[in-house]
Amino acid sequence: MNERTARTVGPVRVVGAGLLGASVGLGLSEKGVEVIVHDASPTTVSLAVDYGAGRRASDTDAPALIVVAVPPDIVAEVVAQELQAYPDALVTDVASVKGAPYAELSLVGADLSRYIGSHPMAGRERGGAISARADLFIGRPWVITPHAGNPAGQIAVIENLALDLGAIPQTMSAEDHDRAVALVSHAPQAVSTLLARRLVDAEARSLSLAGQGLRDTTRIAASAPELWVQIMGANSRYIIEVLRDLRTDLDVLIHALDDQAAAGARRSLAQILAGGNAGVARIPGKHGQDRRYAQIVVKVEDRPGELARLLSEIGQTGINMEDLRLEHSPGAQIGLAEIAVLPEVEEKLVAELESRGWKIAGAYL
Amino acid sequence: MNERTARTVGPVRVVGAGLLGASVGLGLSEKGVEVIVHDASPTTVSLAVDYGAGRRASDTDAPALIVVAVPPDIVAEVVAQELQAYPDALVTDVASVKGAPYAELSLVGADLSRYIGSHPMAGRERGGAISARADLFIGRPWVITPHAGNPAGQIAVIENLALDLGAIPQTMSAEDHDRAVALVSHAPQAVSTLLARRLVDAEARSLSLAGQGLRDTTRIAASAPELWVQIMGANSRYIIEVLRDLRTDLDVLIHALDDQAAAGARRSLAQILAGGNAGVARIPGKHGQDRRYAQIVVKVEDRPGELARLLSEIGQTGINMEDLRLEHSPGAQIGLAEIAVLPEVEEKLVAELESRGWKIAGAYL
Repeated sequence: MNERTARTVGPVRVVGAGLLGASVGLGLSEKGVEVIVHDASPTTVSLAVDYGAGRRASDTDAPALIVVAVPPDIVAEVVAQELQAYPDALVTDVASVKGAPYAELSLVGADLSRYIGSHPMAGRERGGAISARADLFIGRPWVITPHAGNPAGQIAVIENLALDLGAIPQTMSAEDHDRAVALVSHAPQAVSTLLARRLVDAEARSLSLAGQGLRDTTRIAASAPELWVQIMGANSRYIIEVLRDLRTDLDVLIHALDDQAAAGARRSLAQILAGGNAGVARIPGKHGQDRRYAQIVVKVEDRPGELARLLSEIGQTGINMEDLRLEHSPGAQIGLAEIAVLPEVEEKLVAELESRGWKIAGAYL
Repeated sequence: MNERTARTVGPVRVVGAGLLGASVGLGLSEKGVEVIVHDASPTTVSLAVDYGAGRRASDTDAPALIVVAVPPDIVAEVVAQELQAYPDALVTDVASVKGAPYAELSLVGADLSRYIGSHPMAGRERGGAISARADLFIGRPWVITPHAGNPAGQIAVIENLALDLGAIPQTMSAEDHDRAVALVSHAPQAVSTLLARRLVDAEARSLSLAGQGLRDTTRIAASAPELWVQIMGANSRYIIEVLRDLRTDLDVLIHALDDQAAAGARRSLAQILAGGNAGVARIPGKHGQDRRYAQIVVKVEDRPGELARLLSEIGQTGINMEDLRLEHSPGAQIGLAEIAVLPEVEEKLVAELESRGWKIAGAYL
């Protein structure tokens, strides 16, 4: 973070000191903002305070901003309580679904003029205050979903909160947000889970043939069921839309595989696969850009210091790595480092590495 | 590779100089085995020979072993031709599906006593001789699928081939192999594709919210449709089994989301998600073991040399990294290095790094 001074005017009361709440507390505290941490669990409050996420609540607190970071199921209830308890504070929440809490708040007649929804697109498979970190939000989109009753000044308060935490504020309607996350986050979670479930009864021998493809497609299936039951429940409408379209394609695929002699069966298989190519190509790359990097694959012995030596020598060339990945080699004492660089420096880097004796296993644009 | 001497007795004729064929040629040539490269395309032969994958075929060739590495659709046809053209050679293939070519060869009355199927579990999203590398097979399983007519000596020949290329030979029936790869490779490909297809018509704004979860689940959807039409077509029977089970679960999931008020809807949602947890936990880790590593997350500035400095300092501690991953931070000039180490050295490494001024964003068992 470049600025010394926070844009956010405190005190900020954080309600719910799990991964997101404690991370908000840590990040704001680092910027010098006064943070008050509250959680239904006294143990969690102690942990968060020890971590440096803020101080305990007191009877005389007068927070300017309240960030509600509790599980999706109870967001609306807690937001309503906070609106009532602190009649001068602006209240936001960080739940992954935005339409449902707003609808619930309307139903119970909460003072919506001081509520504005938001959603930082950050998280880990692992939750809890113990996983919190001040830099959790850096570079991540922080979606703000104002409603018709929010004056512009309130949007700016949440934008400042996002900017103070290194996030990139982005405003959209609650509906647009919920539809977007159903597609880019909730449906992938569902699909990864459904695929991983197929492994439960598999023979160990079959699983021994697993490669990186299976690992990548099922990684997020390790996420916490309690949380995802709530997220999926709250955004069911849009998730169902994506999953139904997917099921239609799945039926076409199964049908094409089942009756390959049928007219057009191979063509429809090819179209599905080509559609997958087209879809994945639309995902923006690092730094929010849609550019492709050149890949250089270097053979690295699997012993202390080897990868460091490689990267240290890359550092000496002055060439910046855009991404780095060490490829798993099950059973082997060797690794392959896949290095992504800007296409224009690929040739230079390959030459530099080869002149230093590194074995280049491949280089691709 | 530790051995100077190859186990494989040449000459080895490689038919089809794409990614797998050219990589077999490169790897064997490196070990001093005489390799003959053949391909239907003269350009491909030239490229492979220039790469060092072997020499061109001549009329007087007397190969001891023939490795057929052509697209799945024509494997049986080419194997039959090779069996006929070289009556003293043992012929294997490296296709991803093993039941179909054997059945076809039986149908055309080929000399099956000299054919033994195999499948190295290696590949990339990118194909072609240009992507070939001698170390493609290192540490990967190389499945050998003998039939009742293969004497034990023939299995040993393919085991030696696999060992010479650094792979881990594993013998199973063609049926067991096809069922296993349907689960760990072909179904994940199908699912990743179906998910990625949903992005084709998405708004750019929705895609801007994409995170690592979407990237990981859709990565393999970038694979070549031509190849996958053939693989899926040839292994349709077992892929359909997996996909039908997945569809059953998908229906349950959609139903549970659609009628959340129904008795047991939440429980069935939770069961599906927990099943995903259980499935992903069964995938063996690096080095073929089922052990879990400790993760340490370190903040790294996104400029030349920073990551190298980190890894160089890790190297100085003498602690071996089991895995390394640089986390994308779209829009930000910062990276998070996720380092996996054995649990017993985690604490030491964190202390060492902190004493050198590194900021640890998190450490987890």
